[in-house]
Amino acid sequence: MAKNFKNDAITSRDENFAQWYTDICRKAELMDYSNVKGFIIYLPYGFAMWEQIKNFMDRRFKETGHSNVYMPMLIPESLLQKEKDHVEGFAPECAVVTRGGTNELEDPLIIRPTSETLFSELYAKQVKSYRDLPKLYNQWCSVVRWEKTTRPFLRGSEFLWQEGHTVHATEEEAREETLRMRDIYVETCRDLLAIPLITGRKTEKEKFAGAEETYTIEALMHDGKVLQSGTSHYFGQGFAKAFDIKFLDKDNKQKYIYQTSWGASTRLLGAIIMVHGDDNGLVLPPRVAPTQVVIVPIQSQKPGVLDKAYEVKAQLEKAGIRVSVDDSDKSPGFKFAEAEMKGIPVRIELGPRDIEAGHCVIAKRNDGTKTTVDLNDELANTVLKTMDTIHEEMYAKAEEHLRTHITETNDYSQFGEILDTKGGYIKTNWCGDQECELKVKEDYQATSRCYEPDEASDDAVCPCCGKKAKHIIYYARAY
Amino acid sequence: MAKNFKNDAITSRDENFAQWYTDICRKAELMDYSNVKGFIIYLPYGFAMWEQIKNFMDRRFKETGHSNVYMPMLIPESLLQKEKDHVEGFAPECAVVTRGGTNELEDPLIIRPTSETLFSELYAKQVKSYRDLPKLYNQWCSVVRWEKTTRPFLRGSEFLWQEGHTVHATEEEAREETLRMRDIYVETCRDLLAIPLITGRKTEKEKFAGAEETYTIEALMHDGKVLQSGTSHYFGQGFAKAFDIKFLDKDNKQKYIYQTSWGASTRLLGAIIMVHGDDNGLVLPPRVAPTQVVIVPIQSQKPGVLDKAYEVKAQLEKAGIRVSVDDSDKSPGFKFAEAEMKGIPVRIELGPRDIEAGHCVIAKRNDGTKTTVDLNDELANTVLKTMDTIHEEMYAKAEEHLRTHITETNDYSQFGEILDTKGGYIKTNWCGDQECELKVKEDYQATSRCYEPDEASDDAVCPCCGKKAKHIIYYARAY
Ligand SMILES: [Zn+2]
Ligand SMILES: [Zn+2]
Repeated sequence: MAKNFKNDAITSRDENFAQWYTDICRKAELMDYSNVKGFIIYLPYGFAMWEQIKNFMDRRFKETGHSNVYMPMLIPESLLQKEKDHVEGFAPECAVVTRGGTNELEDPLIIRPTSETLFSELYAKQVKSYRDLPKLYNQWCSVVRWEKTTRPFLRGSEFLWQEGHTVHATEEEAREETLRMRDIYVETCRDLLAIPLITGRKTEKEKFAGAEETYTIEALMHDGKVLQSGTSHYFGQGFAKAFDIKFLDKDNKQKYIYQTSWGASTRLLGAIIMVHGDDNGLVLPPRVAPTQVVIVPIQSQKPGVLDKAYEVKAQLEKAGIRVSVDDSDKSPGFKFAEAEMKGIPVRIELGPRDIEAGHCVIAKRNDGTKTTVDLNDELANTVLKTMDTIHEEMYAKAEEHLRTHITETNDYSQFGEILDTKGGYIKTNWCGDQECELKVKEDYQATSRCYEPDEASDDAVCPCCGKKAKHIIYYARAY
Repeated sequence: MAKNFKNDAITSRDENFAQWYTDICRKAELMDYSNVKGFIIYLPYGFAMWEQIKNFMDRRFKETGHSNVYMPMLIPESLLQKEKDHVEGFAPECAVVTRGGTNELEDPLIIRPTSETLFSELYAKQVKSYRDLPKLYNQWCSVVRWEKTTRPFLRGSEFLWQEGHTVHATEEEAREETLRMRDIYVETCRDLLAIPLITGRKTEKEKFAGAEETYTIEALMHDGKVLQSGTSHYFGQGFAKAFDIKFLDKDNKQKYIYQTSWGASTRLLGAIIMVHGDDNGLVLPPRVAPTQVVIVPIQSQKPGVLDKAYEVKAQLEKAGIRVSVDDSDKSPGFKFAEAEMKGIPVRIELGPRDIEAGHCVIAKRNDGTKTTVDLNDELANTVLKTMDTIHEEMYAKAEEHLRTHITETNDYSQFGEILDTKGGYIKTNWCGDQECELKVKEDYQATSRCYEPDEASDDAVCPCCGKKAKHIIYYARAY
């Protein structure tokens, strides 16, 4: 009955995906705009999703030995300049504080665009001996990068994220850490957000400013475009040498440390919206949903209906389920549409006749199916199982979409049509030259998303230049 | 045996309280300085205490119906100027962004010193009808206020805090909210931090810029000085009128909303240090301690000792206790001193002879007492009970210190001696004139901490001017 009740409020995905996205952000009350361009307001519903992501990742960071810290928001311009590649990457997008209190500042201060320089400076002080290693710090904060084109969650002048920064005695350990944290991002996407990924390394052109290697997780959106959703960097000894981070090793020699950093941001909220959403609104994976179940009483003025609704609520809460009762004076149809817009995974409908018959109706947001189930002690278990099923179904659907949108081809003349019609990834060979990457970008507005080094077959050639290929590479149009 | 092993590392409290404080901040590894004055680094141990405070308060905020949001870090200078008293209070301590990317900004941006203006702007958009009320938002973030004199946790140019901002349909509701949140701060201090308080209203002179009334919680430090530790403000309709926050009420009339805000910050870490610490280091109330129990194995090279230590650790962890084993190769005496410096509430000593006898030694950080207890299934319960006892003892000790440092007097000539010798509060009468407040400040460098309106007895006179008194007031020297 609720179908198409409120959908008119949002543009259809196929009609205008960008407008659909913005509509969802606003109508599901995830965010609002402030008066400063690129600085958004995270409203309760959007922020609650971020809190779920934070809790999930933070637990895993702590389980793998990391501690949270908080570093200053402001970085002296002179400090940012210490690592050459790093400052070149970030200088053009800095917000600069030139006045503090009543004084003009001599050394202007940058609002952190990222905090490698601050962590490097701290580690240079803290690390003296191999006994002080590794140092495994993380911080949750917001960063500022001045952007010209901004979109909610996807690209903003300020965004929320975590940035982990670690130093190690050996290259091997640092490399392991880089991959370990990449794997936690993969786990977060798979187990919390029901998002399958392509992972691999960034090319020289696309990697992080100052990194030796950048590992990325890339998620495919419904419209065939790709979203970089988290990165993990291996720095080698670049910052160590620029900041003189040395330690006395067991063999009594002074050595430079090996360093990593890794970050994931509120971009993940954008990924959730664009991977799972539909024309009725958000579709939330149950584990990240702020409200997992909404109970909608039917004919709630009839005696016993509301009482039963609260009874069921208490029962589900006891099982750890995040549940609410919509006891507003709106019509059931309106309530259904609202719950759909908000992407609440499970809706329980409960009317006088249901109660009399001792059952209720469970509706799944992801596919609209309804089941009648008994109102008994098993209800909470049934709901928990239903949520697991929803998670699996959503993951499988997204994985199928991903699988069918990876086009393997070595025919350069096909690139344009593939990208224009079905989108997704082109999986192909690459010689390793940046020129070919640039050519793809110029010809087809697609960027290299990641590559697997040394994986091309012996007779493979680069489709761009015809030279012998070294690597497998993924190209796509990206956010 | 450990007594005085490492204490030399810190200055004695009685010798130089300020130096003692700084020593603890550094030696207990709570924080470090950055290269920008007034911007500190929250190290893992200090940040973990803040995380405990955050979790405790956040749960209570949510239980009382509040939602977390996140507002932009930057505020247009023009927006900050909309409420006259507010901008006068904050303008002199603002950090100003004048450059973004490659552009000079036309309207400079202020890094939030507090976010009343942003929340007011949002509420003006969100609130249309009485159905939209109340709105109960909170955010956890850092704010920047340019300070000339800075001290770790007590006064910094950047600090971490929460700021709650709410709007209500009626004055009564808003006033209730102001007190409800003040009470949550009282509860946090009492039940989590073992800190007793004086509470009351701030005078006109001391209240928050733009507030109609400010309620404060004031904590007495060991040195007799007082720390303002949290405030809750009732704004009336000041911001509502400046920002035009109106709603259509049930009676079909347009009305201005009533507003509150309330904040508590990392100052609370300073309070924990200065209320409870001693010459051996931090003394942490068990519920806020990142590590509640440290197990120190004695003669850990002997077979079975380390195994037993880990077994006990697992047993305590199962009961939800935050516990670690110090299995480093330092001497037991050194480990004891380190655990004392870090203020770990309970130390368990465990050697070969203890294990043979089936017991261990439990030492309490707060008073140094030791008890021998059996190694059996009851151990976790004993430790939990011991921690409750420690909490109560610490609270009682701080309360006794507070009680004995409130001097009731109406003799103005005594003020100086009381403040110079025993410190603490002077509880006296007040006529209500700001001149008398200013006179106390000039004569004795003491400020009014809070007052209780209309509580003076009929024949009471103000000790400063001899006029009829209206209120009871507390003066003290403060941080
Ligand atoms: Zn090529
Ligand atoms: Zn007077």
